[in-house]
Amino acid sequence: MSDLSRRALIGSAAAGAAGLLARPFAGPARAAAPMAGTQAPGFYRLRLGGFELTALYDGAWDSPVDAKTIRNARLADVQRALTDAFLPRDKLPFSYTALLVNTGSKLVLLDAGTGGQIGPRTGAMPAHLAAAGISPEAIDAIAISHFHADHISGLKTKDNALVFPNAEVLVPEPEWRFFMDEARLSTASNALRTTFLNVRRIFSDMGERVRPFAPGRELAPGIASIAAFGHTPGHCAFSVASGRQSMLAIGDTAHHPALFLRHPHWQAAIDMDGPLAAEVRIRMLDRAAADRMLVQGYHFPFPAAGHVVRTATGYDFAPAMWQPL
Amino acid sequence: MSDLSRRALIGSAAAGAAGLLARPFAGPARAAAPMAGTQAPGFYRLRLGGFELTALYDGAWDSPVDAKTIRNARLADVQRALTDAFLPRDKLPFSYTALLVNTGSKLVLLDAGTGGQIGPRTGAMPAHLAAAGISPEAIDAIAISHFHADHISGLKTKDNALVFPNAEVLVPEPEWRFFMDEARLSTASNALRTTFLNVRRIFSDMGERVRPFAPGRELAPGIASIAAFGHTPGHCAFSVASGRQSMLAIGDTAHHPALFLRHPHWQAAIDMDGPLAAEVRIRMLDRAAADRMLVQGYHFPFPAAGHVVRTATGYDFAPAMWQPL
Repeated sequence: MSDLSRRALIGSAAAGAAGLLARPFAGPARAAAPMAGTQAPGFYRLRLGGFELTALYDGAWDSPVDAKTIRNARLADVQRALTDAFLPRDKLPFSYTALLVNTGSKLVLLDAGTGGQIGPRTGAMPAHLAAAGISPEAIDAIAISHFHADHISGLKTKDNALVFPNAEVLVPEPEWRFFMDEARLSTASNALRTTFLNVRRIFSDMGERVRPFAPGRELAPGIASIAAFGHTPGHCAFSVASGRQSMLAIGDTAHHPALFLRHPHWQAAIDMDGPLAAEVRIRMLDRAAADRMLVQGYHFPFPAAGHVVRTATGYDFAPAMWQPL
Repeated sequence: MSDLSRRALIGSAAAGAAGLLARPFAGPARAAAPMAGTQAPGFYRLRLGGFELTALYDGAWDSPVDAKTIRNARLADVQRALTDAFLPRDKLPFSYTALLVNTGSKLVLLDAGTGGQIGPRTGAMPAHLAAAGISPEAIDAIAISHFHADHISGLKTKDNALVFPNAEVLVPEPEWRFFMDEARLSTASNALRTTFLNVRRIFSDMGERVRPFAPGRELAPGIASIAAFGHTPGHCAFSVASGRQSMLAIGDTAHHPALFLRHPHWQAAIDMDGPLAAEVRIRMLDRAAADRMLVQGYHFPFPAAGHVVRTATGYDFAPAMWQPL
């Protein structure tokens, strides 16, 4: 029977000495294998009806967790939720996964990644796009969920060069109206002012390339926007549907499942309208769970696709199983 | 507010017609992007103390589910468990993920993959090893958990050529004794006979390369075997430890979490000693959950690493979050 004591699990020399192996394992005299030190390319493909979807990982950033992270929860409860999910209790690992949809006639990217402008472990999306065999020039359109920097900065390099030179940029009209409003900029708090200025940096010289859409509008055959305001004034989710299959890309309707699926009523400091964001989140998660929808979350752990399960106190995330194509 | 009706989610043309986008999105006149049709390379790296671990995906096989799949459960209950995990109700997706440990001085592989000898979507491990930048010649040792074909066939090609020409093959001594016993072969059932014959095909001409070990024995610095009999007579798990970090590689102590973590008392038809396999499984999962151990499961969804959580009725699997290295 298995001896599962700590002692057995650290492979004590004493246990080894009693072993059967005649010679201690030493292996042939070759040079030690070097550590690779590199992660696998962060992309993942799945089929959805006649569409081919590619999840594109942009990297991760550890957001510090303190008493202000969640507006309506005690820090101890937030820390317990992190511990329950085997995460560090003092930082929330934000990751970024954009979704590329090949409809057979169009390549449409949902959100643009961070452009490496969030932290040193971000900005890998262009490399992962290349690993997936797709050139940035091939992207026909980029649909933006909202104007926070981690969703739009990837449209440009730090030096303001266009990353996707042939793509139209489809943005929610209420988001555009809010963040391009000069009166709002002049009265914005310092934190929000940074967002306003980044929005201008990204979009100001794009001209006709930027095309506002009305939330609810179909953006391309099989790809529709869904109003999901609260996180920001114009935040949108997207639906992707082909044949009998569909996926709901929730954007920032919920950030990390460990906090915002398990505790859907929690209001993130970064939710501009906390009560509305929570209301929209619960309504969307409730529908996703009831209808067993395939869901993609921009800040869910890569590959960021799976299902939402209703629990006694909230929801849980069931990641889709990695499969060959 | 979000309209989440089915109609909205399939992006009806009517909704589109009311939209704001001035021109319907058509994009520039370029050729349609071809579907890639290939999956990302199936490897994933994580650090464990001073070790570098590489999960190596070998592929998947859909095992038909019928009334015989689980000895002590009704088919309807098994189907419900599959549905609860968003899996098809008539087949269990078996996947295969071996674990390569670079200790800094040795490259030790835990289990050998299927060699593509299980089904058309298996046998990808050598390609993924290459994608990870590691040559088969560099592997110093392969530790085998047990002698089922999906764990040992990858040691050889279909034509019986060695895949890892420089590796010693470390096998549990009770497994070796059982499956190399000529008397047992002569009385084996047809199903078991196939396993006996494959064991002979794989090992018969390996000579001194094969080295039986006593379960519990340390196999290399930081890598120890753990007796976990029941699934087969000599089935072993492995522990990997470096610095203050450790991982428990459970082998086939539990197959897919949807069935054998959520219902740990279920006895798979393929468990040679069903009651013992369930007893060992529950003891190991209990310890893993209590000690919050990092766990790797050969048949868990790729990358096959995470934590075990105790629930009211069994256990659940919390996959480790994909991270940059």
